[in-house]
Amino acid sequence: MINRLVIIGVGLMGGSLALALRAAGRVGEIVGYGRGLTNLQDAVDRRVIDRVATSLGSAVREADVVVLATPVGAMGDSLAEIAPFLTERSVVTDVGSVKTQVVSAARVALGERFARFVPGHPLAGGEKSGVGAAHAELYRGQRVILTPEAETDAQATERVAAMWESVGAEVRRMPAGEHDAILAATSHLPHLLAFTLMDLLARAPQRRSVFEYCGNGLRDMTRIAASDPVMWRDICLANRDAILAALADYRGELEELAAAIEGGDGVRLLDLFARAKRTREELN
Amino acid sequence: MINRLVIIGVGLMGGSLALALRAAGRVGEIVGYGRGLTNLQDAVDRRVIDRVATSLGSAVREADVVVLATPVGAMGDSLAEIAPFLTERSVVTDVGSVKTQVVSAARVALGERFARFVPGHPLAGGEKSGVGAAHAELYRGQRVILTPEAETDAQATERVAAMWESVGAEVRRMPAGEHDAILAATSHLPHLLAFTLMDLLARAPQRRSVFEYCGNGLRDMTRIAASDPVMWRDICLANRDAILAALADYRGELEELAAAIEGGDGVRLLDLFARAKRTREELN
Repeated sequence: MINRLVIIGVGLMGGSLALALRAAGRVGEIVGYGRGLTNLQDAVDRRVIDRVATSLGSAVREADVVVLATPVGAMGDSLAEIAPFLTERSVVTDVGSVKTQVVSAARVALGERFARFVPGHPLAGGEKSGVGAAHAELYRGQRVILTPEAETDAQATERVAAMWESVGAEVRRMPAGEHDAILAATSHLPHLLAFTLMDLLARAPQRRSVFEYCGNGLRDMTRIAASDPVMWRDICLANRDAILAALADYRGELEELAAAIEGGDGVRLLDLFARAKRTREELN
Repeated sequence: MINRLVIIGVGLMGGSLALALRAAGRVGEIVGYGRGLTNLQDAVDRRVIDRVATSLGSAVREADVVVLATPVGAMGDSLAEIAPFLTERSVVTDVGSVKTQVVSAARVALGERFARFVPGHPLAGGEKSGVGAAHAELYRGQRVILTPEAETDAQATERVAAMWESVGAEVRRMPAGEHDAILAATSHLPHLLAFTLMDLLARAPQRRSVFEYCGNGLRDMTRIAASDPVMWRDICLANRDAILAALADYRGELEELAAAIEGGDGVRLLDLFARAKRTREELN
């Protein structure tokens, strides 16, 4: 049971966690904090949170669990702001898509309270954002990756793991660096490819025709290009090295593909497409 | 009314057209021809076609409409093979994703019968292939692009347009080169990006983790990587120049994106992502 839960950043991720914990009967009071007052009022009206905190300090002093659900670039400042007010029993966690940089920021910001910070990332979400998209079932059946450090308090990690399991998620643990490399390939790279494709088509000379003759393949492929720009800017800056490595690999493959097309190398094209098709079918 | 319809290549596209015309009561006998006898027998069992032609010559001699629905690379040979047997009343059309190269092949193969060849491309389909995936509603509400040449018989074009309209499709006309440039951007490029992403992940050192932590974004984005490899090899070879141009544009954008990430240029990243998001939302 979480007597008081504080959600910093009440959007799709934070709002859905609040709704899910409430539905599971695992939470007493839910306090929200964030920059957008209209959004916070909306969260109160939708009964996602019970009330809006007037200051982070007063909110977290009595908190059992504090969840950071802002874009990752804002997490360091939020952690520094709450650090002086955290009590020994408070556990702090986050839902950021990048872990190494958030862990570093937390280590600096929290000082001796760092042991009660449990870095986390639920693999859920989607291209919709804001509390209006939040729903209690977002995390059911989804994976949550926790990346505790050597200093992380084992009980704190257990508490966060239990919180996620109570809303139907499956918890895995791995080192932060491994998380960031895997997510760079499976999530960050695909998002960047979709943003880039959409932007290219937006700027194409035949833009109107492009829209008129857009098929389902293009629609599916670019759905994630409607994701929150601030969130993705922050992910790019925070997971820079792993993303640049994934982009370099991808650009290398595209170069090989272009060379095969230019050289009319049907054997190589068939080989590449057949291997991709087999792999994609394994995903089903 | 089409008294005898001949479908060369009875897969998703050809099979769905046969089913749709039958459902609309617009066709007498449907004759199928293709390389795979098992597939053709399957098409008979599923009542997609009435019978299998023993030779292309005998099939097309009595045909009102002949539809080529093979991968585009095979169309030239098929056209050369049927050319001697076509009568004056026969209309020939195709469903290929590339038009300029098919038109050139048809001009050579058909000679004086070229005027009765109506190049076409229904913007429908998907990653599934084979007659087992065919269904009568595939073309309803979808666009079909016809790219008649200066020599193309207007009545032949009308006949093909009427055929597509009778199965619920909306017919547009444009020059073959324009079609190929638009489709290179809206369809061919996205497919190639999906194939490349899937292939890259298949070859990644952390392949197992990649599959274990694959999210919905990646799934949606790579759905079309399960498309038919032969069809896509042929499209790459047939629409080489337009595809290389689209790939070069895309690679240029990816290079700019990598430079912005490397330089920590948050303003530029936010600008790109915000523009892509707005554009994607217009697509909805």
